[in-house]
Amino acid sequence: MSKLWPEKSTQFLKLTGIKIPIIQAPMAGGPSSPSLVSAVSNAGGLGSIGGGYLSPKSLKAQILEVKSKTDRPFGVNLFITDPGNDEIHSSDRIDKIINNYAEELGVELTGEVVPFPNFDEQIEVILENNIKVFSFTFGVPEKKYIERLKLNNTLVIGTATSVSEAVLLNKAGCDAVVAQGFEAGGHRGSFEYKDNIPLVGGISLIPQIADAIDIPLIASGGIMDGRGIYASFALGASAVQMGTAFLTCDEAEVNKSWIDLLMNSTDTSSALTNAFTGKFARGLNNRFMKELKRYEDEIPEYPIQHQLTRELRAKAKEMDNTDFMSFWAGQGSPMNRSTTAEKLINLLIEEYNDVNAKMSGD
Amino acid sequence: MSKLWPEKSTQFLKLTGIKIPIIQAPMAGGPSSPSLVSAVSNAGGLGSIGGGYLSPKSLKAQILEVKSKTDRPFGVNLFITDPGNDEIHSSDRIDKIINNYAEELGVELTGEVVPFPNFDEQIEVILENNIKVFSFTFGVPEKKYIERLKLNNTLVIGTATSVSEAVLLNKAGCDAVVAQGFEAGGHRGSFEYKDNIPLVGGISLIPQIADAIDIPLIASGGIMDGRGIYASFALGASAVQMGTAFLTCDEAEVNKSWIDLLMNSTDTSSALTNAFTGKFARGLNNRFMKELKRYEDEIPEYPIQHQLTRELRAKAKEMDNTDFMSFWAGQGSPMNRSTTAEKLINLLIEEYNDVNAKMSGD
Repeated sequence: MSKLWPEKSTQFLKLTGIKIPIIQAPMAGGPSSPSLVSAVSNAGGLGSIGGGYLSPKSLKAQILEVKSKTDRPFGVNLFITDPGNDEIHSSDRIDKIINNYAEELGVELTGEVVPFPNFDEQIEVILENNIKVFSFTFGVPEKKYIERLKLNNTLVIGTATSVSEAVLLNKAGCDAVVAQGFEAGGHRGSFEYKDNIPLVGGISLIPQIADAIDIPLIASGGIMDGRGIYASFALGASAVQMGTAFLTCDEAEVNKSWIDLLMNSTDTSSALTNAFTGKFARGLNNRFMKELKRYEDEIPEYPIQHQLTRELRAKAKEMDNTDFMSFWAGQGSPMNRSTTAEKLINLLIEEYNDVNAKMSGD
Repeated sequence: MSKLWPEKSTQFLKLTGIKIPIIQAPMAGGPSSPSLVSAVSNAGGLGSIGGGYLSPKSLKAQILEVKSKTDRPFGVNLFITDPGNDEIHSSDRIDKIINNYAEELGVELTGEVVPFPNFDEQIEVILENNIKVFSFTFGVPEKKYIERLKLNNTLVIGTATSVSEAVLLNKAGCDAVVAQGFEAGGHRGSFEYKDNIPLVGGISLIPQIADAIDIPLIASGGIMDGRGIYASFALGASAVQMGTAFLTCDEAEVNKSWIDLLMNSTDTSSALTNAFTGKFARGLNNRFMKELKRYEDEIPEYPIQHQLTRELRAKAKEMDNTDFMSFWAGQGSPMNRSTTAEKLINLLIEEYNDVNAKMSGD
């Protein structure tokens, strides 16, 4: 099996103890269910819990559930952000728009703010449960956390959207860096820039980051099949991280509307929006995204906008109203396949081998 | 040599009569000088004249100059656009901003409109001179042109920024399609959408277009070295088109300021702007682009804005003022290398071989 992958990837497999250099992207807020995480790990890849929004208690429960389903390594991802729990204020205009939508849905918004989980307590759960891989987005953890995790033999993986972010993560002591291309679904992991966040496509981003760091690079963004994996390795990646591709796996916790939209999407169905949370993220363009596009500059920062839209999104989900839910997806969504995680991973290996045969002229 | 490339690329070489599946992108307005075009073709690639802005007379002169320097095939690119020569009107605000900049430079704008060349006459020049490859951007030529070109044994290559544009070009009878990724420098070739032009990164765009068409795909956007070429072929391309990479070749007609900016750029130096011409294009972000960003929605359409800024850009160029010139560049610009076209092509082949060895586990 090891001869299948290039040397760099083989080294990454040794480092992490996994068998296939494919990481299932942590998708906070539902999709990366314990069933999905364990299925990916059991198939030889690295499953990842998206723990950003989880209370320490829920995080622990998910970890124990994954452990009950697999003995293989898996990862947990957390957010490095100022939880901003103190100050929930908005622009009157945005408030009004959201309340109008609620009225249209016939629901009442309580305005209740669900505080973000405490990062220290989340980290303790990770340390106590000897998690193999800790990955994070939206920033660089303080030195004390990285040191404790490494003492605990936990691998630390950061997320970069530009060369300079990747260099910062390398210097901070990370064991690997996820290079998140423009094509990626979900939130941009950018942390160095406040405005004008980096939007660099993978074909340009991957080789530039690979040249700038001395730790393994994990390519992400728009990678959907064996061609994308092979191309990423050629560009300089040691492994890939795939999110959207796993959304249509049976084990993912994704509602039917989301799956239908993914399976019927085109290359131009997605767009970047800050309307749902205040941070830019890529999702399938819908009414909420389109109508709030013009207010992009006055939408409150994350996590304020996240709090402001939380109830509306939850109600819309209950009512299966696709106008006001977020449907995160990368630009490769038309290539989504309905299958199981294990079958998808086996298919990806098969496709990878086919590309290899074509490229090497066999 | 032919064993070097995958089967698809070998077929493309047979189709075009070139030896290396690398096309130098047509860069209208200067860079793709006859010296650059002929140097690329002499090195085995396909040089391309960027003829969009050229009068039939100048186009013919450039073609004859290229022919005097090479016996190898080369291409000519034209614009498929409404020249809009009749109606030059603008928003008062944009007019005022441009006039203020002119005042700052101490130059007077005459407001003279230089009419766009006549497309029929440009095509006649191409037909009369038995050009091997005719490529085009911004639209689909009328059927009569495609038929005449094909009768003349000229290969016809269109430019697509989305799957649906690629399918239209395939149906129109093109011999190949350039898939222009989000990473690409210069103008977006989009023609199907008026607003919200497609911005799809290569890793997602290339395989989706490859699956949708039955003619060869030429990948473009952010491809700078052997890794990018190899990755493009793995994603489904038969050839690559590279523009930015050739800007720093000795033969390119590029001013020193542009070269300096390219050589000192980072992955986040470029941005998309419609400020120079009314059509979105990627260039190194400068004062003109930054200050006009907020007026994006009221900037007149191409070619009106092109006409409005033409004199200001020309004067700025004369004065070597980098605030008001356009410096087109793709997201791979930090990987630019100062060399000759021949040396660059040889280096690209060498790098491609290195990647091939690593990927196939030799």
